[in-house]
Amino acid sequence: MPEKPLLKKDEVLALIRDRSNWGRWGKDDQVGALNLVTPQKRVAATRLVTKGRSVSLSREFPKEPGPGNAYPAQHYMRTVPRPGGGFAADYYGVFYHGVQSTHIDALCHTWDERGMWNGRDPEKEIGFDGATFGGIEAWSDGIITRGVMLDVPRHRGVPSVTQDRPVHGWELEDICQKRGVPVEAGDAICVYSGRDAWQRANPDMPYGRPFGGGPVDRPGLHVSCLEFIRDHDVAVLVWDMLDYMPNGYDIPWAVHAGIFAYGIALLDNALLEPLARACAEENRDEFMLVISPLRVKGGTGSPANPLAVF
Amino acid sequence: MPEKPLLKKDEVLALIRDRSNWGRWGKDDQVGALNLVTPQKRVAATRLVTKGRSVSLSREFPKEPGPGNAYPAQHYMRTVPRPGGGFAADYYGVFYHGVQSTHIDALCHTWDERGMWNGRDPEKEIGFDGATFGGIEAWSDGIITRGVMLDVPRHRGVPSVTQDRPVHGWELEDICQKRGVPVEAGDAICVYSGRDAWQRANPDMPYGRPFGGGPVDRPGLHVSCLEFIRDHDVAVLVWDMLDYMPNGYDIPWAVHAGIFAYGIALLDNALLEPLARACAEENRDEFMLVISPLRVKGGTGSPANPLAVF
Amino acid sequence: MPEKPLLKKDEVLALIRDRSNWGRWGKDDQVGALNLVTPQKRVAATRLVTKGRSVSLSREFPKEPGPGNAYPAQHYMRTVPRPGGGFAADYYGVFYHGVQSTHIDALCHTWDERGMWNGRDPEKEIGFDGATFGGIEAWSDGIITRGVMLDVPRHRGVPSVTQDRPVHGWELEDICQKRGVPVEAGDAICVYSGRDAWQRANPDMPYGRPFGGGPVDRPGLHVSCLEFIRDHDVAVLVWDMLDYMPNGYDIPWAVHAGIFAYGIALLDNALLEPLARACAEENRDEFMLVISPLRVKGGTGSPANPLAVF
Amino acid sequence: MPEKPLLKKDEVLALIRDRSNWGRWGKDDQVGALNLVTPQKRVAATRLVTKGRSVSLSREFPKEPGPGNAYPAQHYMRTVPRPGGGFAADYYGVFYHGVQSTHIDALCHTWDERGMWNGRDPEKEIGFDGATFGGIEAWSDGIITRGVMLDVPRHRGVPSVTQDRPVHGWELEDICQKRGVPVEAGDAICVYSGRDAWQRANPDMPYGRPFGGGPVDRPGLHVSCLEFIRDHDVAVLVWDMLDYMPNGYDIPWAVHAGIFAYGIALLDNALLEPLARACAEENRDEFMLVISPLRVKGGTGSPANPLAVF
Repeated sequence: MPEKPLLKKDEVLALIRDRSNWGRWGKDDQVGALNLVTPQKRVAATRLVTKGRSVSLSREFPKEPGPGNAYPAQHYMRTVPRPGGGFAADYYGVFYHGVQSTHIDALCHTWDERGMWNGRDPEKEIGFDGATFGGIEAWSDGIITRGVMLDVPRHRGVPSVTQDRPVHGWELEDICQKRGVPVEAGDAICVYSGRDAWQRANPDMPYGRPFGGGPVDRPGLHVSCLEFIRDHDVAVLVWDMLDYMPNGYDIPWAVHAGIFAYGIALLDNALLEPLARACAEENRDEFMLVISPLRVKGGTGSPANPLAVF
Repeated sequence: MPEKPLLKKDEVLALIRDRSNWGRWGKDDQVGALNLVTPQKRVAATRLVTKGRSVSLSREFPKEPGPGNAYPAQHYMRTVPRPGGGFAADYYGVFYHGVQSTHIDALCHTWDERGMWNGRDPEKEIGFDGATFGGIEAWSDGIITRGVMLDVPRHRGVPSVTQDRPVHGWELEDICQKRGVPVEAGDAICVYSGRDAWQRANPDMPYGRPFGGGPVDRPGLHVSCLEFIRDHDVAVLVWDMLDYMPNGYDIPWAVHAGIFAYGIALLDNALLEPLARACAEENRDEFMLVISPLRVKGGTGSPANPLAVF
Repeated sequence: MPEKPLLKKDEVLALIRDRSNWGRWGKDDQVGALNLVTPQKRVAATRLVTKGRSVSLSREFPKEPGPGNAYPAQHYMRTVPRPGGGFAADYYGVFYHGVQSTHIDALCHTWDERGMWNGRDPEKEIGFDGATFGGIEAWSDGIITRGVMLDVPRHRGVPSVTQDRPVHGWELEDICQKRGVPVEAGDAICVYSGRDAWQRANPDMPYGRPFGGGPVDRPGLHVSCLEFIRDHDVAVLVWDMLDYMPNGYDIPWAVHAGIFAYGIALLDNALLEPLARACAEENRDEFMLVISPLRVKGGTGSPANPLAVF
Repeated sequence: MPEKPLLKKDEVLALIRDRSNWGRWGKDDQVGALNLVTPQKRVAATRLVTKGRSVSLSREFPKEPGPGNAYPAQHYMRTVPRPGGGFAADYYGVFYHGVQSTHIDALCHTWDERGMWNGRDPEKEIGFDGATFGGIEAWSDGIITRGVMLDVPRHRGVPSVTQDRPVHGWELEDICQKRGVPVEAGDAICVYSGRDAWQRANPDMPYGRPFGGGPVDRPGLHVSCLEFIRDHDVAVLVWDMLDYMPNGYDIPWAVHAGIFAYGIALLDNALLEPLARACAEENRDEFMLVISPLRVKGGTGSPANPLAVF
């Protein structure tokens, strides 16, 4: 039960449609909200590094099958002897979207009936060889920007976000205000929802779609977070819990609509518990964030190991 | 024909054995020369960023088959419709070692008859599930350090290194001196050999092992570069051309011996032509370098997209 | 609760060890019990074909994830246009052992502490490149023999075998006798346990190891079936349910011990419901059986589509 | 230089269009010319087995890279210990169309501007999840029919077919007549062109498209063979060499047009040298042929190990 009135459906649609960034950087732009990460922004981000402490925001490559890991990643080994020595090499294979692999979504990843980012038609842009618009290669130069921790469990005084209480945009505002950390254009926000604490409390419940295809319930971020994202010109959303489900509005995408509507980068399934701990230890809410997607032409995203550096 | 006397075999073996870093950071250490990248080193690296210009050092994910790409990377697409929208997802599969994929080698990747890094036995440490020592997860916090460009073609006044004239350690010293850029402990050196210019000049010659398994000739770095690496306590070698072949000493590994002997990180098959151009344009030889390997437990390395930031 | 006394552990071990076929066809033989399928046997099998009705014993390639399908098979498409036309091609990838994919086990697939088939040491014979002994290529000429249906649910008058009542060797004897169909040397027996009826009755229970690795219970064939197999010199066991679990004897393999002890071919996860129906319709218990494994050097088995022809 | 006049383009187009089998077994039929393999045909085929000698027509699973094997098949191993024993399992992955893997083409595999088999539109029938028409599952009950060897090198008195002299339909007629073996409706013809002898004589020349995408020359069957196939109502073409290239008519498909025009099954890259030898030894030109494709829903074909049984 939210402390503030729920958005109505027309308000949600207005968020996605009326406030979209289509055309803001040209109608053929494939970079999206990462245009907000200017060279100046990059330089400023590096100045946040004062201690040289680096924290990985990546979960382990998800090789183990399980109810929450329908398509386990593949890791196959090989050793090759040579006279006087030898070497080991391996094969990695991964269908990385979903709820286990830490990965970044490219702008071609999602769409609604009005289309992909900048209004492109997925029927035309997505083919057997990859995407011809909005592929991950548009971000090959990497993402280096200011990261801001928004720690919801700390704010609420609970171990984790739960199904009965999704994270709302106004709550993110509250956190910023309470912590005295304004979010600025081009920032990456790291919304920590305590996914691992939730999983420990619910060991048999997969986060995300269980097998069978029935209705999915999962705790996470309410679509109202889009308002916060758009108001502050956020460029990157790093999160451990994803969209709250059911989204409640009979729309195909909730927060994931930020990809095609605003052109933002989503970094799904981040490991944020160690980062939250580091923020507490350093008594800081901001840091340099680096994400370096693989350079895959036409790819819909990339597995990634984001780094937060204090 | 080198301008200085060639190392003799016992000198090469001494470089690999007598000057090894085994035990330097403890006999069970799995971090290797990256121990030289201290927090202070990271902070200093970030201060090299003054313009906010970022350059990718990654080649494209090598999907296309060819004589130089025996095992093409896999990229398979899928679209999934939903009421009112849909999404695209894809599968990446890659046997990334070899001469095409830009990737980092973990400390478990190579060995000679004396063993892997820190003297471990590959028979014991390498299994069907991955490596139990020296896997890429040891570097999950990423590599953030000072990068130094060593541009061999510019130094020589030629388009590229060629088969008849491998790069020697003393030549790297010469470059540093001439450019006035000393290499320091924990640095990443980016040794640019003009691989792409060489490929344009030799369009039908694969770089690296052609099919058939006969003797392989390829231009690149002579084993004497190990001396430079060890003298300066280099932590990371980023290169576009790899070991000069044949290595000339009947040893299983030349510069790649630096992995098991010194514990250095090799970033193979980097794309350095754009970086060389950027260095020339910025009139600089140093920058912040970031490499963020995937967090694969027991992996022998990782595909990567290294970033150089000015 | 079995109608006849349970085998004691020493009787089970005697079955596996004292009655093994090691050396029966030479100590280096890799063909195993398929030596019993002589040319004469093949000819005779073809004479069982009188109506020309062919029935597939293969389940669908298991692409769909689920609690019983930890590693879904991969099927990725590609279309390639050409002037005036085009074509479609696809990629198949499968880790086919387990409980979903219809497949045949090679002689190198299982072992106990005494070793693999013919006493070979798996440490020596199994490597990163495949098996050097007992690989599936030993059966490249295919399996063409007499198939005999042993329909347990029909015999019992129930829809399927259940956890409380595993199939015993003496029950297979009873079925043969009652149906008047003797099993002969070199035969393939198709032991139908009603797995699909069982699955329909237990829709949420995976057949075989669920995630988590706890103890596994599943209905199936008791190790006593080995006695039947050895007494009749069966060459091939085609089954829909596999070993009854727990096997009850603290041994690594129950019926699957027939691979390394007797050299028999196991065809796991067959689809036998349509075959049982066809047998009833044709009022026959025997037919020509054909299995044609892929010719993979060093492979531990092969996905297969076995055919029963009446 | 052919001994008989070359077909003109309009004759070729007439072969593909006017003599097509579209609608012959109903407009929604997905079985194609395999409808000609009636139950009676199957029974008769089994009666050709008189000696019980079985010959595999499959090449080895093509794991090795090379100029003729742009996408090597994947074979990755795993061993799993258990108390008192263990097992080995493996992963197979293959993009099996092309010129190395022995495989069968489904009816959805090729098309020209008029469409796929039975006039279907590939744009509608081929998607990311596979084909919705003409997939390989239509042949899950396997192919059991009479096989007839057509040995071109023996007929010509040469080791192999060569680039300067493609195989024509009239030559197949000549072979049948000379050998006294009429081809009948529903037969599988095994057209042996001596591909392996050709490869031994041309060790550095890949059969089929080399890298680079330039014009491809390769010896093989001329499009005129379609006339022979259609005249005799052949159901299956098993061949070691494929379409002669360049086809000479500026059409997208030559003999491969038989898939969409006649609904025939093509078994590409068969290993026919051992079969030719067996035919000579047995002094026979006919045998039972069995092909058992994997049961992949929507698949465009299947790797296969065809068996010829004498």
